[in-house]
Amino acid sequence: MNAATLDAHGSVLLGEIREQPAALERLLEHAQEYEAIAAEMCRRGGSLVRMVGHGSSDNAASFGIYAFGLLPGWTALRDSISLSVYYRAELDLAGSTIVALSQSGATPDVVEYVQLARRRGAFTVGITNDVDSPLAAAAEAVLPLAAGDERAIAATKTYTGQLAALTLLAANAAGQGAAYVDGIRTVAGLLTELLPVLERQLGAVATPLAFVGRMFVIGRGPEFATAREISLKLLETCRVAAEPLTATDLAHGPIAALDSLFPVWAIAADDEALPAVVEAAKRARAVGATVVASGPAAAAIEDATYSLPVPQPPLPLLGPLLSIAPGQLLAWALAQAKGLDPDRPAGLDKITFAA
Amino acid sequence: MNAATLDAHGSVLLGEIREQPAALERLLEHAQEYEAIAAEMCRRGGSLVRMVGHGSSDNAASFGIYAFGLLPGWTALRDSISLSVYYRAELDLAGSTIVALSQSGATPDVVEYVQLARRRGAFTVGITNDVDSPLAAAAEAVLPLAAGDERAIAATKTYTGQLAALTLLAANAAGQGAAYVDGIRTVAGLLTELLPVLERQLGAVATPLAFVGRMFVIGRGPEFATAREISLKLLETCRVAAEPLTATDLAHGPIAALDSLFPVWAIAADDEALPAVVEAAKRARAVGATVVASGPAAAAIEDATYSLPVPQPPLPLLGPLLSIAPGQLLAWALAQAKGLDPDRPAGLDKITFAA
Repeated sequence: MNAATLDAHGSVLLGEIREQPAALERLLEHAQEYEAIAAEMCRRGGSLVRMVGHGSSDNAASFGIYAFGLLPGWTALRDSISLSVYYRAELDLAGSTIVALSQSGATPDVVEYVQLARRRGAFTVGITNDVDSPLAAAAEAVLPLAAGDERAIAATKTYTGQLAALTLLAANAAGQGAAYVDGIRTVAGLLTELLPVLERQLGAVATPLAFVGRMFVIGRGPEFATAREISLKLLETCRVAAEPLTATDLAHGPIAALDSLFPVWAIAADDEALPAVVEAAKRARAVGATVVASGPAAAAIEDATYSLPVPQPPLPLLGPLLSIAPGQLLAWALAQAKGLDPDRPAGLDKITFAA
Repeated sequence: MNAATLDAHGSVLLGEIREQPAALERLLEHAQEYEAIAAEMCRRGGSLVRMVGHGSSDNAASFGIYAFGLLPGWTALRDSISLSVYYRAELDLAGSTIVALSQSGATPDVVEYVQLARRRGAFTVGITNDVDSPLAAAAEAVLPLAAGDERAIAATKTYTGQLAALTLLAANAAGQGAAYVDGIRTVAGLLTELLPVLERQLGAVATPLAFVGRMFVIGRGPEFATAREISLKLLETCRVAAEPLTATDLAHGPIAALDSLFPVWAIAADDEALPAVVEAAKRARAVGATVVASGPAAAAIEDATYSLPVPQPPLPLLGPLLSIAPGQLLAWALAQAKGLDPDRPAGLDKITFAA
């Protein structure tokens, strides 16, 4: 597994990973639409944002909790679709904003939740890669991801697009839209430089990890979304039972399961959570676990078996747009190392209709 | 592993599992206190409940989302402690109720969150097994779990106590307190009959599972809390990398990782989510996975390798108080089968001080 091999395969997934900087630039062309909808959220959504989505979209929502919490100081929650759609709870949704995340815009229960919330008086916003989708029809306001067609089963460029989209809404709600538009543009530039570097690094990591069956992925704060998304990539693309945990989660039980055959991936950022993440990695090393360190502060994790740092983001909240890249690329490289098809994992469809 | 073996060990964990019916009866002696606090929540907490806790307490909060959603129709969320305590987001917490869950009442960041929320004008309620704890001092209102001293590292009787406590608050808020007090009493009786039956069954399940390193545990709706709690028991007590998933989560990626060496535990209840859980188990069987079926509707999962049914609860929402029992007992039996000490998992303390 080396850069030449990566280039040679013509993988759809790899192509879409590489396309992320361009996709972010395209999303920024819609910055004014995001600004307008954020203003409407301020007018009609109180300070409560209910995010809904599955899979990678739900992982992006974990980031949204921090984006809305840290910028306008709003409460954002990953609302339960089941509770309202299947169990028919009669929640009062008026006075809140729904942010529905779906790449395809075709996930049936997300669409149904939006229809129900709109009838109950919520301000409904759909963020999707297909502005002609059922979600776009159901929501009062539609915002494009503008990522271009995504064909690989594993979402990549639409995930980073969702992070950027949530950032734009939160930043505009806090009156900081312009700074974050600039910040995302800077991130796109950093990603353009980073991706080829990571591609060259990953051969040395993928081969020894090819026999790993399970892994913990630790992140905290905004980077907990990254931990969830890396876990999902490894699970769906490489059949690794990767479980995302906060550093605190790890200490509350799972630490007991660690041993030298149970690798830990730690995502470190230069923020309030860094000491907890460093400590968790140290505990993992103490029992002999292989430690993969990534994130803007990967260097703070001493004694890591593998280190995959990413650049410092121009604004701290934008770290996750960079931090996900090593996970996406390792998922691709590891699938190849295991003889799996990274573009079409067994048993998955691009749009999931399962209830 | 048979009933005689279980009896012979004098395990603290097993003793506490068996004590659950009595602990529930003791909690019901405080029913009037729960009624009074629920009334106060109605007066001061709007319809927004922010639950905080770690580990098993956070798993109980997953149940609380359904208890508050289905009974009074309130929005309950597992609030982010990190966001407010470590990242210092300035959320407006006034007009909501905080329900802080901590067996020991000594978890530092839970206490800090409650102090902060109280200063910001939220109605703060601490539910704890120690009414002289720092949490009890920090919260405006304190409700006892009354479970008696819990000495095993893995929480059991305080988890079922937390489910009962959340149920009592939600039911009283919906004007249905008396029915749920009766229901919990009936559940205590059913558990008294169930536990010895399960203990006899589990030998046949634990031994063949002794070499399992990873597992998915599927539950949905109120039983998602059960899936999370069973996963945590297996992880902390038996070092199994067990990951909780909703049936939908499974279809959105993880299904690709399943194979004959990746067992799936499916928790089935007779409710709106049953078809999705049955379908998920069927997909797991189709790829040759070992399937463990449990819950009140375990019989609906045809072709399960092992079936561990529990009785129908007197009220559907109370199912999780019964459904957790097979998981608790299997964690105990499996630890024994693997030569681990179920009372003191390596690397864990009863109170977790990690940030």
